[in-house]
Amino acid sequence: MALDRLKSVAQHVTGTLPPPHPFDPLSNQEIESAVSVICEEKGKLFYNAVTLREPPKKEMLKWLESPSSLPRPSRIADIVAIAPGGKVFDGLVDLKAKKIIKWEQLDGVQPLITMEDLQIVEHVCRKDPKVIEQCVISGIPAEDMHKVYCDPWTIGYDHRFGSDVRLQQALMYYRPHVDDSQYSYPLDFCPIFDAGKQEIIHIDIPEVRRPVNKAKPNNYHAASIEAEGGYRTDIKPINITQPDGVSFKVEGRVIEWQNWSVHVGFNYKEGIVLNNITYNDHGVVRPTFYRLSLAEMVVPYGNPEHPHQRKHAFDLGEYGGGYMTNSLSLGCDCKGAIHYMDAAFVNRAGESTTIKNAICIHEEDSGILFKHTDFRDDSVIVTRGRKLIVSHIFTAANYEYCVYWIFHQDGTVQLEIKLTGILNTYAMNPGEDTKGWGTEVYPGVNAHNHQHLFCLRIDPNIDGPDNTVFQVDATQGAGYVGSKENPYGNAFYAKRTKYSTVKEAISDYDGVTSRTWDMCNTNKLNPHSHKPVSYKLVSREVPKLLPKEGSLVWKRAGFARHAVHVTKYDDDQILPAGRHVPQTSGEPSRGIPEWIANGDASIDNTDVVLWHTFGITHFPAPEDFPVMPAEPMTLLLRPRNFFARNPALDVPPSYCSTPSQIAAGKGVLDAADKMSKLVVTGGDAAVAEGACCKK
Amino acid sequence: MALDRLKSVAQHVTGTLPPPHPFDPLSNQEIESAVSVICEEKGKLFYNAVTLREPPKKEMLKWLESPSSLPRPSRIADIVAIAPGGKVFDGLVDLKAKKIIKWEQLDGVQPLITMEDLQIVEHVCRKDPKVIEQCVISGIPAEDMHKVYCDPWTIGYDHRFGSDVRLQQALMYYRPHVDDSQYSYPLDFCPIFDAGKQEIIHIDIPEVRRPVNKAKPNNYHAASIEAEGGYRTDIKPINITQPDGVSFKVEGRVIEWQNWSVHVGFNYKEGIVLNNITYNDHGVVRPTFYRLSLAEMVVPYGNPEHPHQRKHAFDLGEYGGGYMTNSLSLGCDCKGAIHYMDAAFVNRAGESTTIKNAICIHEEDSGILFKHTDFRDDSVIVTRGRKLIVSHIFTAANYEYCVYWIFHQDGTVQLEIKLTGILNTYAMNPGEDTKGWGTEVYPGVNAHNHQHLFCLRIDPNIDGPDNTVFQVDATQGAGYVGSKENPYGNAFYAKRTKYSTVKEAISDYDGVTSRTWDMCNTNKLNPHSHKPVSYKLVSREVPKLLPKEGSLVWKRAGFARHAVHVTKYDDDQILPAGRHVPQTSGEPSRGIPEWIANGDASIDNTDVVLWHTFGITHFPAPEDFPVMPAEPMTLLLRPRNFFARNPALDVPPSYCSTPSQIAAGKGVLDAADKMSKLVVTGGDAAVAEGACCKK
Repeated sequence: MALDRLKSVAQHVTGTLPPPHPFDPLSNQEIESAVSVICEEKGKLFYNAVTLREPPKKEMLKWLESPSSLPRPSRIADIVAIAPGGKVFDGLVDLKAKKIIKWEQLDGVQPLITMEDLQIVEHVCRKDPKVIEQCVISGIPAEDMHKVYCDPWTIGYDHRFGSDVRLQQALMYYRPHVDDSQYSYPLDFCPIFDAGKQEIIHIDIPEVRRPVNKAKPNNYHAASIEAEGGYRTDIKPINITQPDGVSFKVEGRVIEWQNWSVHVGFNYKEGIVLNNITYNDHGVVRPTFYRLSLAEMVVPYGNPEHPHQRKHAFDLGEYGGGYMTNSLSLGCDCKGAIHYMDAAFVNRAGESTTIKNAICIHEEDSGILFKHTDFRDDSVIVTRGRKLIVSHIFTAANYEYCVYWIFHQDGTVQLEIKLTGILNTYAMNPGEDTKGWGTEVYPGVNAHNHQHLFCLRIDPNIDGPDNTVFQVDATQGAGYVGSKENPYGNAFYAKRTKYSTVKEAISDYDGVTSRTWDMCNTNKLNPHSHKPVSYKLVSREVPKLLPKEGSLVWKRAGFARHAVHVTKYDDDQILPAGRHVPQTSGEPSRGIPEWIANGDASIDNTDVVLWHTFGITHFPAPEDFPVMPAEPMTLLLRPRNFFARNPALDVPPSYCSTPSQIAAGKGVLDAADKMSKLVVTGGDAAVAEGACCKK
Repeated sequence: MALDRLKSVAQHVTGTLPPPHPFDPLSNQEIESAVSVICEEKGKLFYNAVTLREPPKKEMLKWLESPSSLPRPSRIADIVAIAPGGKVFDGLVDLKAKKIIKWEQLDGVQPLITMEDLQIVEHVCRKDPKVIEQCVISGIPAEDMHKVYCDPWTIGYDHRFGSDVRLQQALMYYRPHVDDSQYSYPLDFCPIFDAGKQEIIHIDIPEVRRPVNKAKPNNYHAASIEAEGGYRTDIKPINITQPDGVSFKVEGRVIEWQNWSVHVGFNYKEGIVLNNITYNDHGVVRPTFYRLSLAEMVVPYGNPEHPHQRKHAFDLGEYGGGYMTNSLSLGCDCKGAIHYMDAAFVNRAGESTTIKNAICIHEEDSGILFKHTDFRDDSVIVTRGRKLIVSHIFTAANYEYCVYWIFHQDGTVQLEIKLTGILNTYAMNPGEDTKGWGTEVYPGVNAHNHQHLFCLRIDPNIDGPDNTVFQVDATQGAGYVGSKENPYGNAFYAKRTKYSTVKEAISDYDGVTSRTWDMCNTNKLNPHSHKPVSYKLVSREVPKLLPKEGSLVWKRAGFARHAVHVTKYDDDQILPAGRHVPQTSGEPSRGIPEWIANGDASIDNTDVVLWHTFGITHFPAPEDFPVMPAEPMTLLLRPRNFFARNPALDVPPSYCSTPSQIAAGKGVLDAADKMSKLVVTGGDAAVAEGACCKK
């Protein structure tokens, strides 16, 4: 590693470092360069973000066609800065020209809350006399204020305070001991922090008071487990090794693996961004997706009492899935042979920072890829699959989100998200009724109902950018049982509804018809099926947005009103709840609702983006506490009519025999994994044998 | 292995073998013993099945409470036999008493089709003059009849022939070469085979004839891949090893793992049966499920033309998921450290047979079990999970079903099914329109739309057999936005609907409300949430049965009409489409429709069974051909309000640090997997380092 770093530094000094790929996130050097350009002209500012302004798609598509002959698209830094006093600026800097090409002051808009912004609030709370007063009322002595903690959230939106002042709401907790989980000791009041003044300007105090919990700590750290009898000792190690190395190649940030090629980007809001995803189909490099990312999410809580309506975090737009990302650890977050990528950001002072090991790239065995046995003679093929996983994990105060982008050998792209971490909790009195809005997960601890709704931004590029989206519903055939067209009543088919306009594409999930959405290139038909080449979105965790039409959440999270929206591609439309999310009132609703305002706009056979909202509704249970076992959810982008046949037929099988080989008793292909062993059980003298595939 | 076998034989001879667990499948010896009892009294018969008649549940529950002091329930063999001439008999034999305790001749009923039954048809077809005539019409020379194959299915039901004569329909194929995949060469006619006469009694010939396909073979075997350029060479091995052995214990067929205990049974119809599943909750052995199995399935095809309506295989009830099970191979079907169980069956002649390695039991790493980082100081816990997988794979003519029962450390039981194998195909003429009932997956090959609908039989035992089922729907709170009870419009809750009667429990899936079903013990409340202890069925792949009400499939597959049925427990109600499925007319509909006839029967706080139909609707695409990449589907049984807290807190973490340890710079728990390595990339001189968990 040291050598690697030296080499990189040397290359910078000598100028031999290859220029960045146009999709590459800004490097530390580029971030600092952008800041220095701004600083020179605009003076001292606090930096909220300095990130890559991705090249215009038209220019990029052209460049991708012949990257060696065309000039690289310019490197542009996208900057959000806050002047002392609170004025917000959006800017763009051309890094080569070292020139500000846009500089705009924004009014009534708040950029996201950074980790640095978050860290301040707790310290201010501890010293604020009114907060101390409330703590004392809650049963915490004033001298114990160092035991008081808060998870500072953006205020979301509160009509009493509007959008002009930068505000956070402090969800308050107590720790009897510094190592105790605070989520067993929620406090019942909610201070409001003014980031401009750096002080508490208001405290929301409920009518019914709930003193600090008296229950004993409910912890998960090692000392507490040891005190309760210790860790279980009956888990034997599983070792996963790749003695010959990995099957993927890394060139800069472009990963090549099993016919796939993908550029792995990263930004402060979306975290991982996958660009220019192509599949090499027998020598023809076929584009599939221009860009994939989790572009937004919202976590509305379902307790109707004030001020819980403000709990509806937009974790990406309000805090940043990149900013909150974990530095990952070998053998902890991922097992096996791991390639990491770091993430570079700006801090408040304008210096560049690095999160080491922000992205994990590794392979896993994925079980049987395909198998078939001929029942006549047991001739068989069995082929094991492999998957490539590009992942990051971010911590949004109490929750953790583990995001896995998974590539399969059969051409499928899978997105898996695991939810873990800790429930957001609120205080309750002994014997208090949760009224169904939450669950008492531990004495005195009310975990409110909530939803996790993610917005997946899919920029399809199915054999080219001009694509069309169809809704597909499994549908009964026409005709009653006994009719001429449906004599036996068994007819059914895939009903395809073309979305010609933006308005037609506003659609919900239908579990009964197993609704899916096909992203098609109608200009290119599959040679066998004569259907348009396509990728199908298969997503089954698609709850309705439960906050009602006209509610604050409904207004602010316009993207979540429907499972699918389709828009015509626009370079400026990346973030479906808008560019600056904190303290938006939802009037007007930012992002998608603005972009679909012209419902008649054509999305037929043109460059489109599909926005998909999915997720889960979480009614907490004691099993989720004090730390929650990971709850997985997943969706697939599956090639349908894209390939002429199963594209993974040339993956070496573990075992393959044909009828003639069976008859001749020879010639089978046996490449079964020789590392697998039989279990040596109990006192039995059974000897573990090596691989013993079919006779 | 040889020593193991010798030991077993020796124990049988000396009588020292422990008696079978009452849930154990019949051993080879027991099968032969049952046959000899029958043979002595009834003379020569053909055996369709000799399987365990499971002990009455009441008796079993009592015995399980004190197995060492109470007498073991009797071993009873359940027998289906066919006399020469076709008479069908159901019988029971008490194995200890060596006595027939039931012997009943059945009329108008056909037991399932065995592999032996299947094998005969092809040979008869090849010699049948009328079949040869049709082959010639299709373009196959009469001398090439050895190249003609058939997948014999039970006839399902055809009103022209009724139920008295045992019939199979022969789906016909051609292989230019013995190693060619026949599914590229479907023939257009369908002979009907009479198992009594052992001859073809009819041929269904379509009005529009479709000569045998002229396309070149579409194969997946090694020679064909080699001829097309060979296998890819860039997949590096992944080795999965357990040098210290596995974490589970096997005693007979009882597996103990991570607080779980489960008896693994197996029978010819359902395949794997899991019995008496308990979880040791800090020293208290708590029952969760008395019995889990896939009890039936149906695969209706959606082409309305005659005779395709007959294609709706009940793969378990008509053929047997156990009978069709694969003998599994190390390093092919499963990787790592594997424990196998064999399966014993009877053959037609009454001899016992064995499928070696019918069941695979192994562990896998399951990624992050839980994680949380405190954003203030990066103190963190990260714990990796493990899963135990009990699996088998069965081949139903063209398709393979891979069935994985997965136990998790957090108390979840998961059922995952992977579909692979080959599409059922039918002939089509050049330029013919599939009319939407199928897809041309290869020139001349029409793969019809179909559904795979599985029926999961859940016999819950949530802290005892008296359970109640609730439907749970995520639901908006009452009151308009701005109302007193819902001022912000954000209220939502889990609406619980109790199923008091059989009628109330007949229910469908609702994706919009993320509907789940809770199996509760209302007599026992969670100490914290005060809600009944429960397991929740979370299932998201729940399509509607697409054949219409009143259709043949709808009548025969009564279980599939709804996603959930609940019945009061009955020892005789195991198979939801009835005991003998082939050639049932659906009038009356067997199984569940009979058992729910009394809709007012109480299912409140009593011993109940929940029947859940789930699956997928498959609209084929060329990617699925010539062999289909595995398509996974999954469902969960999750503990909710069952445990007082996360039951996996004592799983050793990979890494754990607390705020005080971070502050002191010491004392953290670092047990990260030291086998994981950094990837050595490209020409870089980066040195692979060992585990380097958080500082």
